[in-house]
Amino acid sequence: MKLTTKSIDIENRGVLLHAGDAREISVRDGDRVEVKNHITGESVSAFVDTTASLIPQGVIGIYRPTQVRIDVLEGAEVEVRAADRPATLDFIRKKMDGLRLGKEETLAIIRDVVDDVLSPSELTAYIVATYTNPLDMDEVEHLTRAMVETGEQLHFPSYPIVDKHSIGGVPGNKISLLIVPIIAAAGLKIPKTSSRAITGAAGTADLMEVLAPVAFSALEVQQMTEKVGGVIVWGGATNIAPADDRFITVEYPFKIDARGQMLASVMAKKFAVGANLVAIDIPVGEHTKVPNADEGRKLAREFIDLGERLGMRVECALTYGESLVGHTIGPKLEAREALAVLEGATEPTSLIQKSLSLAGILLEMSGKAAPGQGYAVAQEILSSGRALEKMKQIIEVQGGDPSVTSAGIVPGEHQFVVNAPATGYVVELNNKALISLARAAGAPQDRGAGVYIHAKKGTQVRSGEPIFTVYADRKWRLQKALEEGRRLMPVVVEGMLIDRVPSRHWGVGGDVHGA
Amino acid sequence: MKLTTKSIDIENRGVLLHAGDAREISVRDGDRVEVKNHITGESVSAFVDTTASLIPQGVIGIYRPTQVRIDVLEGAEVEVRAADRPATLDFIRKKMDGLRLGKEETLAIIRDVVDDVLSPSELTAYIVATYTNPLDMDEVEHLTRAMVETGEQLHFPSYPIVDKHSIGGVPGNKISLLIVPIIAAAGLKIPKTSSRAITGAAGTADLMEVLAPVAFSALEVQQMTEKVGGVIVWGGATNIAPADDRFITVEYPFKIDARGQMLASVMAKKFAVGANLVAIDIPVGEHTKVPNADEGRKLAREFIDLGERLGMRVECALTYGESLVGHTIGPKLEAREALAVLEGATEPTSLIQKSLSLAGILLEMSGKAAPGQGYAVAQEILSSGRALEKMKQIIEVQGGDPSVTSAGIVPGEHQFVVNAPATGYVVELNNKALISLARAAGAPQDRGAGVYIHAKKGTQVRSGEPIFTVYADRKWRLQKALEEGRRLMPVVVEGMLIDRVPSRHWGVGGDVHGA
Repeated sequence: MKLTTKSIDIENRGVLLHAGDAREISVRDGDRVEVKNHITGESVSAFVDTTASLIPQGVIGIYRPTQVRIDVLEGAEVEVRAADRPATLDFIRKKMDGLRLGKEETLAIIRDVVDDVLSPSELTAYIVATYTNPLDMDEVEHLTRAMVETGEQLHFPSYPIVDKHSIGGVPGNKISLLIVPIIAAAGLKIPKTSSRAITGAAGTADLMEVLAPVAFSALEVQQMTEKVGGVIVWGGATNIAPADDRFITVEYPFKIDARGQMLASVMAKKFAVGANLVAIDIPVGEHTKVPNADEGRKLAREFIDLGERLGMRVECALTYGESLVGHTIGPKLEAREALAVLEGATEPTSLIQKSLSLAGILLEMSGKAAPGQGYAVAQEILSSGRALEKMKQIIEVQGGDPSVTSAGIVPGEHQFVVNAPATGYVVELNNKALISLARAAGAPQDRGAGVYIHAKKGTQVRSGEPIFTVYADRKWRLQKALEEGRRLMPVVVEGMLIDRVPSRHWGVGGDVHGA
Repeated sequence: MKLTTKSIDIENRGVLLHAGDAREISVRDGDRVEVKNHITGESVSAFVDTTASLIPQGVIGIYRPTQVRIDVLEGAEVEVRAADRPATLDFIRKKMDGLRLGKEETLAIIRDVVDDVLSPSELTAYIVATYTNPLDMDEVEHLTRAMVETGEQLHFPSYPIVDKHSIGGVPGNKISLLIVPIIAAAGLKIPKTSSRAITGAAGTADLMEVLAPVAFSALEVQQMTEKVGGVIVWGGATNIAPADDRFITVEYPFKIDARGQMLASVMAKKFAVGANLVAIDIPVGEHTKVPNADEGRKLAREFIDLGERLGMRVECALTYGESLVGHTIGPKLEAREALAVLEGATEPTSLIQKSLSLAGILLEMSGKAAPGQGYAVAQEILSSGRALEKMKQIIEVQGGDPSVTSAGIVPGEHQFVVNAPATGYVVELNNKALISLARAAGAPQDRGAGVYIHAKKGTQVRSGEPIFTVYADRKWRLQKALEEGRRLMPVVVEGMLIDRVPSRHWGVGGDVHGA
């Protein structure tokens, strides 16, 4: 059926049909139609909402994301028909039934994911099927290659290209802001793509955005890396392994991280930027994604195996994941902390040691340091100021202000200090609760929001000394964070009263209330 | 945040927020918000689309289905906030991890499904998890009870209440149109709810709608059943076990039918109408849902076991499912065929025998016929005209015209007869292809559309005799069906040429074309 387009400014991947037109082509709400652009001859598939009044019969409302995909002008004529059932649904069904998927089947699924042919529900079915019927290493390799092929790729004229990845689960992990300039200062190329926080308080992209813009095309990432040796950009803007963003959206309500998906997502992004030397940071700890060192070593072997299949050298570092890295959570607080280290601060040791260890691995892998000398070489690059100088070049090439200093980064103006109610040791510092607090305060959207932890686990504090400070850009957010803090009690000092429970039988005035 | 409502006539379960307001409360497209009606104090949860221009800041667009749920007037003030993550997501995750769900957890999930708290993607995750990690019988019982409790229930003052169900997979299965009047004519109560076709050419509700309206509330179903003994209505309008409709929507792209879900859906609908005697028709055959008699008997035992747990007596009939029942596919054609049998037609025997067998089982279960006499009693009720008389009462009580006759039901005016190209036996009659043909012709939406099969499998036909006739209400639909017929070849006559493949090297005029 021929329909005339009308743009509708709604962020939704579908189209809007008049109920009468929908009946005519036998589709219902939620069904899939194929919309063909008469000029280009190209078709996109889209899901249907219907209306009886918003548009007349003969008109199709094109929501904004669909507009981008089909690329038609307002008032253009398009051909609309009920879409065929995608063959990839049968492949997904196959995986549900516990069968293995071949290379072409996996590629077809990922192509349909990226082209928005599959609905979020259909993608969910795929993800859940691969979670309950885990992918074997052949399938993981197919998936990795499919994720690479369905997105942009960088092609550098010379090797090595190095990269690093932290599989997450530990807060305050701002090490990329140190590792990238150290590696680039050593004369290596490191085109680092990173993510924004989804459930956390700040992703590496959120931190870097405090210092410079982070949204670039794949080509720009390549050009900037060739120019200064490294970048720290937001992967979401590059269209590198774009299927990953779709997976994350589906996985996050369930907090699942299907092993095969995770391996493929990480390695696809490294492969697509052309990296051939990769260090993977695997934080280990009861509250991270990897509960113990044995699990960590197993995962490491899988990364290394997958890397070999793809022609990449991978080394993994099992790191301590029980405690936050450094003292800060939240975009500005973390960016300030990392920049201060580049400027010469000798604290916090947890941040500096972890960053130098990872950087050291990459320096050794690439031959820029002799075996066993990586840490020392990284330390020299940092303490000599060369890493700071490189970071300023990176900030500048990404369009930020290279004269920025840590002192110039001012976190949220609304603050609240939580003091130790008693003298004793900090016996508990709940990472998840601290993240909730930072998010309640507005992080990551409000860049100044976050938490500064003065006394980490094991530290002795005296009564009245600060344990942590909450920062917020907006006053009502600070209020919300305080409520969250009272509810979650993220820090416990030994000997401190956790709560006072008044007697049920005595009211303020001594009145006796009934039960 | 307080926002003012504006109704938006779009059939979608969400709400529309201005991008600025969405940022303010930290939600993104696809996130969940809680919308609280200030007057009633009630909250509903809804998914967010955003816009930068369609509505101003301070206004929330309420899509039509959301409007029904929250029940606010245009211009009302509502409180909108980012919704908490539903606890049921953790239960779904638990099932993904292969653990068993308890009664309360299952009830909470089904409640969130019915209340639209869970998104289609989240529901998909639940369905896929129960498909890959099958429910045990305790879980199936919990699910059945949860599906009953989250919908309407009928409460008749006296027993028995009888019911029947066909688990599907065989086309043309119009037996309810005979069984219900026979059973009601025997003095029993049979409040039959039925479904519309989803992937088929006509569901029982689609057939009945040719004769009378089928959309009634649960209370109306009860009142009509008390008045005339039986009804044949569309279950979708009754709000009986409403979770089932949601399940079906999710399952149908994948053509899955998770065993536990299927058992629960069937039995919940029987339990909710108050039935205590139930006959289940299990068509067995390579192309149905149950490939052989052993599988059929296993499924039958599960239905019987679940029935016992719920206090219902269940008997199952394994029936021949390889061939269509009767000669017709499509709403009007099937309704006409069934009505003709009620009027006294002695053909088609496949339809008559199957209907009498099932009715006979119910008559014996209820004591209306002695053991072994059910078929004969049913036959007597049919041939005496009492079943026709009862059907007219049912049609009348549902608001149809009781003077209707089979001769008065006229199928689609556009027809095309496919004749046998050679003399021989019909060796193949592909049910799936016939259904595709009927759907291409417009069924079930176009009630006159469908297929009449003159020569079923095993019949001898002479060259030039009709094999099947395609009917359509609209001419272009007939054209589409013919194209589909040529593609699918639903009927094969032994000895007939399946296709002619011309020599590649000789064109019409004898020219030689290059390869």
